[in-house]
Amino acid sequence: VAGADLVVLCAPVGANAALAAEFGPALRPGAILTDVGSVKNAVFRDVGPHVAASVHFIPGHPIAGTEHSGPDSGFAELFFNRWCVLTPPEGADGDAVERLAGFWRACGMSVDLMSAEHHDLVLAITSHVPHLIAYNIVGTAADLEQVTQSEVVKYAAGGFRDFTRIAASDPVMWRDVFLNNREAVLEMLGRFVEDLTALQRSIRWGDGDSLEALFTRTRAIRRGIIDAGQETTEPDFGRRDHKDGGAT
Amino acid sequence: VAGADLVVLCAPVGANAALAAEFGPALRPGAILTDVGSVKNAVFRDVGPHVAASVHFIPGHPIAGTEHSGPDSGFAELFFNRWCVLTPPEGADGDAVERLAGFWRACGMSVDLMSAEHHDLVLAITSHVPHLIAYNIVGTAADLEQVTQSEVVKYAAGGFRDFTRIAASDPVMWRDVFLNNREAVLEMLGRFVEDLTALQRSIRWGDGDSLEALFTRTRAIRRGIIDAGQETTEPDFGRRDHKDGGAT
Repeated sequence: VAGADLVVLCAPVGANAALAAEFGPALRPGAILTDVGSVKNAVFRDVGPHVAASVHFIPGHPIAGTEHSGPDSGFAELFFNRWCVLTPPEGADGDAVERLAGFWRACGMSVDLMSAEHHDLVLAITSHVPHLIAYNIVGTAADLEQVTQSEVVKYAAGGFRDFTRIAASDPVMWRDVFLNNREAVLEMLGRFVEDLTALQRSIRWGDGDSLEALFTRTRAIRRGIIDAGQETTEPDFGRRDHKDGGAT
Repeated sequence: VAGADLVVLCAPVGANAALAAEFGPALRPGAILTDVGSVKNAVFRDVGPHVAASVHFIPGHPIAGTEHSGPDSGFAELFFNRWCVLTPPEGADGDAVERLAGFWRACGMSVDLMSAEHHDLVLAITSHVPHLIAYNIVGTAADLEQVTQSEVVKYAAGGFRDFTRIAASDPVMWRDVFLNNREAVLEMLGRFVEDLTALQRSIRWGDGDSLEALFTRTRAIRRGIIDAGQETTEPDFGRRDHKDGGAT
């Protein structure tokens, strides 16, 4: 990394501190250091101390991907029409931020800037808690005594299948996400469980109006995602290409 | 329906009783009456009383579909390589069951027989609870004060997007499913929340080993679904065809 203009750290976030201790001191003044991790506060905490003030340290998160990991899981359209969030620290060099944004735009992404704190909150609800509940329901299903694993597999087309895809994501990467975004995940998870308990109560007491009202309200967000072009087929193309690959 | 050999009831399950009261008495002796609802105990309860013993009443559930409803949401591959569950009552006519199974096989499905009780338990975990938690997290996200709805939409590619697809399913159909499979849904939901609470505790106390162990275990079920041919692209084709359609 000694002569590099741009260094992009791509590792499970729990590995960042040890990696940065190794390469941090070798970075040249004026270089840009960024990353692609799904948490950003922890990156400041773990990487920051190993980077000289003369290096432009601008954490980032290109929000794109499939359940597959590693270099072999990339495909041409991976970043196309997706958002990349950069979380420059207070007083970051505007020129360096713009150069880094240009790098991601060249990959087909749109770029947003926000604080690391806000990023971690947004991702807790749009990515971390969804992954957690997907992992969780697959585990619950696997542990049932009354329903066999082979039945769960055969009848997965009723909705379960979509959750298993997410629950096939890399275990170490996701372990590190939860360990390193604890506060925001626990906050969002608390709200999720609170809302779920209200739904449970509606089911127990036969309150169909409450159920129907929620189920109607959720359609608006779906419509927003389709209108914003965030439901596209690129990830499926990736999935198909790698179905028999070694990336899992 | 008076002269029909086969009648397939396709309505939100809450509408069955009133519909059966209308057409039940008109069915001819020897006709087959079936349905496609996602709960089966309630169909026996609601439809059974309106059907003469001379009619072959064999509830069924072709497990296939997208978030779209109605006749316009069908497509040629909808049933291909999917499972249809039939729940014939004790003492059902074997010949009639075989003819109905043949009907679904001709649509491309494989057919399994099981009790209505077992069907409702299997579907609670593979379909009903997954839909409930998908609806729930979309609702939780919509209600946040700290994160705007437009942020949730923009950054949906991190996992949230898959949940919004499921949470765009028909509100009345799903209201009726939860009202009519209460016991099994509450049982599975109880287990889900129990497991989720354990995960929450692991996150709070930094127990990375437990998290990684679960996240590793869930991959086996995903592999089983792929090996069983239950992760295919047909539903995506359907989605693509109907993206601009009026079915939502």
